[in-house]
Amino acid sequence: MTFPVSLDEIELAAGRIHGRVRTTPVLELEPETFGHGLVAKLELLQHTGSFKPRGAFNRALSTTIPPAGIIAASGGNHGLAVAHVAATLGVAAEIFVPEVSPAAKVDRLAAYGPPVTVTVGGERYADAQEAADVRAAATGATMIHPYDHPAVVAGQATMARELDLQVDGVIDTLVIAVGGGGLIAGAACWFGKRVKIVAVEPATSRALGAALDAGRPVDVEVSGVAADSLGARRVGDLAFAAATAAGVVAVTVDDADIVGAQRLLWDRVRLVAEPGGAAALAAIRSGAYRPHPDERVAVVVCGANADPASVTG
Amino acid sequence: MTFPVSLDEIELAAGRIHGRVRTTPVLELEPETFGHGLVAKLELLQHTGSFKPRGAFNRALSTTIPPAGIIAASGGNHGLAVAHVAATLGVAAEIFVPEVSPAAKVDRLAAYGPPVTVTVGGERYADAQEAADVRAAATGATMIHPYDHPAVVAGQATMARELDLQVDGVIDTLVIAVGGGGLIAGAACWFGKRVKIVAVEPATSRALGAALDAGRPVDVEVSGVAADSLGARRVGDLAFAAATAAGVVAVTVDDADIVGAQRLLWDRVRLVAEPGGAAALAAIRSGAYRPHPDERVAVVVCGANADPASVTG
Repeated sequence: MTFPVSLDEIELAAGRIHGRVRTTPVLELEPETFGHGLVAKLELLQHTGSFKPRGAFNRALSTTIPPAGIIAASGGNHGLAVAHVAATLGVAAEIFVPEVSPAAKVDRLAAYGPPVTVTVGGERYADAQEAADVRAAATGATMIHPYDHPAVVAGQATMARELDLQVDGVIDTLVIAVGGGGLIAGAACWFGKRVKIVAVEPATSRALGAALDAGRPVDVEVSGVAADSLGARRVGDLAFAAATAAGVVAVTVDDADIVGAQRLLWDRVRLVAEPGGAAALAAIRSGAYRPHPDERVAVVVCGANADPASVTG
Repeated sequence: MTFPVSLDEIELAAGRIHGRVRTTPVLELEPETFGHGLVAKLELLQHTGSFKPRGAFNRALSTTIPPAGIIAASGGNHGLAVAHVAATLGVAAEIFVPEVSPAAKVDRLAAYGPPVTVTVGGERYADAQEAADVRAAATGATMIHPYDHPAVVAGQATMARELDLQVDGVIDTLVIAVGGGGLIAGAACWFGKRVKIVAVEPATSRALGAALDAGRPVDVEVSGVAADSLGARRVGDLAFAAATAAGVVAVTVDDADIVGAQRLLWDRVRLVAEPGGAAALAAIRSGAYRPHPDERVAVVVCGANADPASVTG
């Protein structure tokens, strides 16, 4: 396998979205907090509360947007990002939202108002995507895929590039939660084999782990507390290619680990992370991934779109 | 007036507490978010959810702690910091807590357990302080004053020193909320007249503003949503001296401004700030302090000890 996105494409993406996305801070967490000294990349402080605007901005800004605007299927973080991109760039957006989406995220989407249109329909994500595809074919709107597009991967890769600059290259390992795989694909393309990349998935939605086992992307069942952000039925082709090329290691965490990491993040760091945003830390805390004592580990805290009341014990 | 704490004392404090406190990150906030481009110093991510451990560690580590340990009167962030210091250093602590303290903070204090003893009693902070003074005289425990002690001020000053390094000296103005004045005293001692310092107080508890008006610290009535962290009846002598020497400007915000800033911090940045922690940002948002368009402004977000459910609209 080869890396599907080049370093040049990532540099171009970084320039393209500069000023549109926040440089999210890093915070060193002491070993007492999570069982190992960590550099936490606080990507949950990004616009809209997740890393998703990086990819969405790069996708939108690397094409000519037609009068029909941009379109996406997502009841979650990707939908919020596409709405934010549309509102920022002053273009129309249609977001197709499956019925399973959490109310907190759908309410936030609806709050954008025109030129963002939200259509709730279809039982699951795949149904919403199908509806969006039909609509895009009719209107000519630019589809912003949540993860499996080179411009989206290049945009998400800017998180890894930014972290690399912030830590002056001195990390051994990067731990990232995986849903469809856009963020880890970007990190793998940026770091290559320079940094060990650990993919963390809920045991109940391990699309990347199953793909690595099978040697190709395969469908998996999805459920659990983090399903709204990490519950992709099939990992992206680009993510599979990048993870294979980089030699990504995949581990799983269970729902109790994730909820425990959310509570620790609030108790010890005063951060509100959504389940998917806390999953990478859960892998350290639970021992799903055990670093060597002198291993320099960075962990991405990648989403904050939870009800704040849900993170207290 | 002269500065009550020297740059040398602040450098010594920084060395003394190194590794005990977190280097809290800074985050650039775009003008769309709060009405002016800002550097936010995220001191709410400090241990125990406020800046207070800086001063408490420096006070404890710059003396020989007797067998009776350390003692403080506080039902809030200072009490949490002293408990954290005791637990970290393995010394005893007695915390005297007034009955008005918010349950969220008292519960956190009680959760430390031995060697931290929590005594709830006395209607107000002054009563708890009196009880703590009587107890300290009997046991010989080291009193950790919440703000009006040179070692506490030097410790809090490390926040300003750290920010100065993070922004490479390029800020014009620093906006800080004031209660008893420990944090602003430290910032004034560090920055002197190099940086304009704006003190933000609730209109209902303006101890520093009243002192600057009167030419000396005077008692004020205290009330309002931020009273548990900013409601000092009288500003510290050291804070008054430092603020006068630095030419600090004092402005006020009302409770609605503070609550609005808390909600914006959650909606746009996904940070949970307590009322006192959001007060400085409230001054920008409300126009209580209006920077020039090209003024480079840093704002301290200094406390997170709110019920997370309280920050959503």
